[in-house]
Amino acid sequence: MKRVGFIGLGNLGLPIATNLLRAGYVIKVYNRTKEKAASLVVGGAQAVSYSHEVADRGGIVISLVSDDNALRDVANDELAGALGNGGLHISMSTIGANTSRDLATHHKKFGVNYLAAPVFARPEAAAAKKGFVCLSGGNPSERSRAHAVLTDAVAQQVFDFGNDAGAANVVKLIGNFMLAASIELMAEVFALSEKNGLETQSVYEMLTSTLFAAPVFQNYGRLILNRKFDPPSFRLALGLKDVNLILQNSNQTKSPLPMANLVRDKMMKSIAHGNDERDWAAFSEEARRDSGI
Amino acid sequence: MKRVGFIGLGNLGLPIATNLLRAGYVIKVYNRTKEKAASLVVGGAQAVSYSHEVADRGGIVISLVSDDNALRDVANDELAGALGNGGLHISMSTIGANTSRDLATHHKKFGVNYLAAPVFARPEAAAAKKGFVCLSGGNPSERSRAHAVLTDAVAQQVFDFGNDAGAANVVKLIGNFMLAASIELMAEVFALSEKNGLETQSVYEMLTSTLFAAPVFQNYGRLILNRKFDPPSFRLALGLKDVNLILQNSNQTKSPLPMANLVRDKMMKSIAHGNDERDWAAFSEEARRDSGI
Repeated sequence: MKRVGFIGLGNLGLPIATNLLRAGYVIKVYNRTKEKAASLVVGGAQAVSYSHEVADRGGIVISLVSDDNALRDVANDELAGALGNGGLHISMSTIGANTSRDLATHHKKFGVNYLAAPVFARPEAAAAKKGFVCLSGGNPSERSRAHAVLTDAVAQQVFDFGNDAGAANVVKLIGNFMLAASIELMAEVFALSEKNGLETQSVYEMLTSTLFAAPVFQNYGRLILNRKFDPPSFRLALGLKDVNLILQNSNQTKSPLPMANLVRDKMMKSIAHGNDERDWAAFSEEARRDSGI
Repeated sequence: MKRVGFIGLGNLGLPIATNLLRAGYVIKVYNRTKEKAASLVVGGAQAVSYSHEVADRGGIVISLVSDDNALRDVANDELAGALGNGGLHISMSTIGANTSRDLATHHKKFGVNYLAAPVFARPEAAAAKKGFVCLSGGNPSERSRAHAVLTDAVAQQVFDFGNDAGAANVVKLIGNFMLAASIELMAEVFALSEKNGLETQSVYEMLTSTLFAAPVFQNYGRLILNRKFDPPSFRLALGLKDVNLILQNSNQTKSPLPMANLVRDKMMKSIAHGNDERDWAAFSEEARRDSGI
C-alpha cells in the first residue's frame, strides 16, 4: 500500500493530491482551511487537524504552501518528529533557497530527509501530470525515492540539481523571474505595436510561431492580448513574492538583476492599482497605462 | 528569364544573392566594396559600379544594407528613375519605419513600388532559405510579386503586415529588441546561477527543454554559456543600432520601453569595453562583470 501525507491544498496542491488519490495512494491531507479537503475526503482521503498528523513514521510527506513563513509553520518540530528516522519531506513550495537549507538541517536532527521539489505547472498542467519538477537535496537514493512519487503526482519530467537542498529553489525562482520578464517584454512590445497602428494579433502570431515559438510566449501572450486575468491561475501577489525572493537571493549572492528590479516595480504598480488577486499577467496592463492607451 | 538587381553583399546579402543565382535568376549586384561580389561573378552575376545600374526598367531590385543612411545613399533618384514605372524595390534592411515611409513616397513619384521586407535569419539560416520575412507596403498584388522572389531568395515563411511600408520594419525591430532582452535575461540568470554555485549548464538545459524551448533561448543560451563571440554572426554595433531604432520609435509613438533602455545601456557598456565587432551576444559578459565573476 502506497501512503503519503499531503500539506497544502491550494491551486496546485489540490490537483496534485487528487492525482495521488487516483493513482491508488492512501493519503492524509492537511490544509489551513479544512473545506478545501472536501472533494478528497469524498474520494477516500483522511483530513487531519494539524499538519504533523499527515505523517507516518518513516513515511513520505509532500508540502505545497504559499510562502516561506507558511512552510516554516507547518514543517515544525512536531512534523519532523512524527516522520522520524527514515522519513522524507518533499517540499514543493516556491520559497527561498536558505529556507530549504535551514529546514534540511533542522529535519536532519530528527533523522528526516528534506528535499526541495518546486514544480513548474499551471493548475491544469498539474492535473494532467505535465509539470516540470526541479529536485535537490539529500543524496541520490533519497532523490530517487522522491522521483517515483513525484511522477505519480505531477511530473512529466524531474530535473536533478544535486545535493544542495537550496539549488532547486534557485532554479524555480530563476524560471519564475524569466516568466515575469517575458510578460513585461510582451506587454511593452504589444503596447508599442498598438501605438504604431499595427494589428497586435498579427505581431503576436508571427513572433510566437517563429523566434519565440515556446509555450511561455504563446500562452502568456494570448492572456495579455485578450486582457483576461480572472479567474487567476497564479495570483499576482504570489508572483511579486517570487520576484522579491530572487532579489533577496541577488542580495545574498551579490549578483545584480536589473531586469528583476524593473519587473518588481511594474508588479508593485499593478498591485497598487488593485490587481493583487488577479492573474499575475495582469501587470502587463501597466505598459498600456504607461503608453497612454 | 527571371531577373533581379541586388544591392548589399554583407553577412546576409551574400548568401541571399547566392540563393537567387542558384535558383536561376539573372542578377546584377552592387556592393560598396566590390570584392564582395567575386564569388557571385564567378557564378555568372554581373557586378556594377553604381547602385542604380542593378535596375532594369519595370524590374525588381532587392536591397539589404547596414542602416538607414546606407539605404538612403543607394535608394536614390537614379535608382528609382532606372526602375521606373512598374518597378519594385524590395527593401530588406533593418531600418526605422519612417525611413521606409519616406522612401515609399519618394519612389512613388517615379512609379516605383517600395516594400519593406526585413528578414529574421542568421547567415547560415539565410543560406538554407530558413528566414522569416516581414512584408508590408504597396498593395496586395505588389506584395504577392515580392513574395515569390523572397521565397526563392531566403524565406521559409513570409508574414504580411499590410499596406503601411513602415509596419514590417516595426515588427523587425520588435523582434530584435526581444532577442536582445532575452540575451540580457539569460546573462543575468546564468551569472546568478554561477554565484549560487549551481551548474549553469544544467540550468540552461532544464529551461531550454521546458518553458523556454525555443531556438532563441537554445541558440543564444549556448553562445552565452560557451562565451564564444567570434566570428560574429551579427555584430554588436548593429545590435545597438537596432535597439536605438526601437527607442527612436518609442519616442515618436510615445510608448515607453523600459527594458529597451536597460538593454541599450548594457550594450553600450559592452561596446565601451571594445566588443563592437564581436557577436552581439557578447554583451552578456557585462552581467558576469557586474556580478564580480
